[in-house]
Amino acid sequence: MPVNLQSPDPAALNPVAGVELGWAEAGIRKAGRKDLLVMRIAEGSSVGGVFTQNRFCAAPVQVCRAHLAENRGVRALVINTGNANAGTGASGLDAAHASCRAVAELLDCAPSQVLPFSTGVIMEPLPLERVLAGLPQAVSRLRADGWLEAAVAIMTTDTVPKAVSRRVAIAGHSVIVTGIAKGAGMIRPDMATMLGFVATDAGVAPELMPRLCKDAADRSFNRITIDGDTSTNDSFVVIATGRSALPRIEVADSPEFEALAAAVAAVARELAQAIVRDGEGATKFIEIRVEQAASEAEAAQVAYAVAHSPLVKTAFFASDPNLGRILAAVGYAGVDLDPGRVQLHLDEVWVVRDGGRHPLYREEDGQRVMKKSEILVRLQLGRGAAATTLWTSDLSHDYVSINADYRS
Amino acid sequence: MPVNLQSPDPAALNPVAGVELGWAEAGIRKAGRKDLLVMRIAEGSSVGGVFTQNRFCAAPVQVCRAHLAENRGVRALVINTGNANAGTGASGLDAAHASCRAVAELLDCAPSQVLPFSTGVIMEPLPLERVLAGLPQAVSRLRADGWLEAAVAIMTTDTVPKAVSRRVAIAGHSVIVTGIAKGAGMIRPDMATMLGFVATDAGVAPELMPRLCKDAADRSFNRITIDGDTSTNDSFVVIATGRSALPRIEVADSPEFEALAAAVAAVARELAQAIVRDGEGATKFIEIRVEQAASEAEAAQVAYAVAHSPLVKTAFFASDPNLGRILAAVGYAGVDLDPGRVQLHLDEVWVVRDGGRHPLYREEDGQRVMKKSEILVRLQLGRGAAATTLWTSDLSHDYVSINADYRS
Repeated sequence: MPVNLQSPDPAALNPVAGVELGWAEAGIRKAGRKDLLVMRIAEGSSVGGVFTQNRFCAAPVQVCRAHLAENRGVRALVINTGNANAGTGASGLDAAHASCRAVAELLDCAPSQVLPFSTGVIMEPLPLERVLAGLPQAVSRLRADGWLEAAVAIMTTDTVPKAVSRRVAIAGHSVIVTGIAKGAGMIRPDMATMLGFVATDAGVAPELMPRLCKDAADRSFNRITIDGDTSTNDSFVVIATGRSALPRIEVADSPEFEALAAAVAAVARELAQAIVRDGEGATKFIEIRVEQAASEAEAAQVAYAVAHSPLVKTAFFASDPNLGRILAAVGYAGVDLDPGRVQLHLDEVWVVRDGGRHPLYREEDGQRVMKKSEILVRLQLGRGAAATTLWTSDLSHDYVSINADYRS
Repeated sequence: MPVNLQSPDPAALNPVAGVELGWAEAGIRKAGRKDLLVMRIAEGSSVGGVFTQNRFCAAPVQVCRAHLAENRGVRALVINTGNANAGTGASGLDAAHASCRAVAELLDCAPSQVLPFSTGVIMEPLPLERVLAGLPQAVSRLRADGWLEAAVAIMTTDTVPKAVSRRVAIAGHSVIVTGIAKGAGMIRPDMATMLGFVATDAGVAPELMPRLCKDAADRSFNRITIDGDTSTNDSFVVIATGRSALPRIEVADSPEFEALAAAVAAVARELAQAIVRDGEGATKFIEIRVEQAASEAEAAQVAYAVAHSPLVKTAFFASDPNLGRILAAVGYAGVDLDPGRVQLHLDEVWVVRDGGRHPLYREEDGQRVMKKSEILVRLQLGRGAAATTLWTSDLSHDYVSINADYRS
């Protein structure tokens, strides 16, 4: 059961002029599931992407990087679930290229204008013939209001499709930002998460896209973790079609760029948080805020140590205020901190003062917060003014069941 | 159920001349459990210790370091379970000092000749009065053949007491090495594990003890992990009483030192492996060997990434050869490796050749190995000649249950 997360209302998902989406049931891993998605992107759009830092990055990630580097413009994305096409060597690369060629033929563009994406089991050969057989059907279904079905088509262990849409005014013009993403395990994005796609009808100069992508990822997908496992396939793509009335944004630090970046980041953050809410086996949504750090990197180091501790995660699952486990994780995070300057709040409850249990802290206050489904862990390190926030879930029996049974 | 681990045979545990052990049921956390241990050490013994690198190190760890630094010789250890006396601030330090004073009075030595140890829940005040009330009984039970009961007295979530004994010949003299340890969660020692004690009747010059300790820890307790959580209380102590006929060892690189170091390390490694076999919820005992690394640190970095991956651990629990998860963990370990040079063997089965699935690898071969209770994961990085080995367990439903219910 996801934590306070519902299936999106299709009426709330604004189409983005210049983007169409179409799906197919290609039977890649199992029959009768939407598992193939094509996104057509109008000519003249700007597209940026950030990808996993995992050294065993998947074949489609390698192809995406190469195609973006060619800089010929992107006209389509092709996305399959059920198979990650990772750890598959040269034949995996061949399969990714063949998918791009097939899409290019159907949509009348160059293969290098197609970006491929895969998600699913690692180290199994991609059943290319099923992908190729499904593509004509996906293309025949292309439509501008296909966002919800697209979100469904990229799900793996997700229980709820993830789609978010915002309409913002920038310089007096209405601009739309709509995106989809999927989780729900092997989630500790290092650049971006497995399959997040956000589109806007604003126009953006291509050279600004990397920064737009990275800024949004750093404030969203790069600040979530479920199990600490960085995927081989993480990819986050932003598409700017330029079909709104807003003049194309050409300058990185302009008010228009900042406003669009904030809107894209807000959509990305809501998608990223949706991934955590629907994290494998999640029963709690936990925000970890680390303040008074010497640097943001150090704050993140401490936050991830807490977020990845199986002991902290099982305590949240049990609603047990066994909060010394949080201190232990802070202590082994690798930051040379003075324990006597550390403060810990759980929501509004002050638990640790100057490195030790607060004299007025009562177990029942900790218990009350731990029973909630959404909890804020706030740590102050007493070392500086930097801070960061990340979002994570607990570790439950269902996490073990889901991942023990994943391939069966 | 521990993995291929039985309760030690008391007859096989050789007493060490100069060491006596006595326990009490002090009711520190629960009534009717052995939870307090005193070890008396004969005058003239050499004692060395290594301790957790966790910044939130417990009060007894701080007192141990201070007492060892005073260098007046160690005459006793006092160990309680049920409470870690960590995250307890100044009053925790006071309680640790008070325990030492009480033992010193009972055994007629100086308080700084006593080393205190605690294990259990973090951030709760140590019930000092129960410790003090239990000490006379523990002292009244001091006996040289008390090793097995001592191993029982330091258990927390352990299901089996851990004690190992060896008799070796050094320079024609019989020497005994006997030790005890406990686990079974918050195990990712960074120097040593929570409570390992090894004694020998060999004599060793005090200045050689740090090296004897560290060498043994680095080949044993510093190479195991259950959940990646480095405890606040990890402590590993080696006692050399000098009561054997072997002349006192004065030179670090002498054959006698090397022989004793090997025996101490062998006992420590067997104890460390026993902790993994009895790891919380463990159903598998997994050895991870990383070879062809550029340095041992790099090999350890990759080995720990694999050992800590919840996805790898749940695959072992399920006996599911979903081995791409191992590649993903290798890929995000933070080593700048070339995936195309990576080899993976599972026991004798060659799974990954040059970064991709071996063309002759068959799922049923992987399946056969995964069903075993003891599995060797062998990774070759193709970067150099360094190697390391560590031992870990799987992630099961019982791990979640044990840690969700720990304090209830």
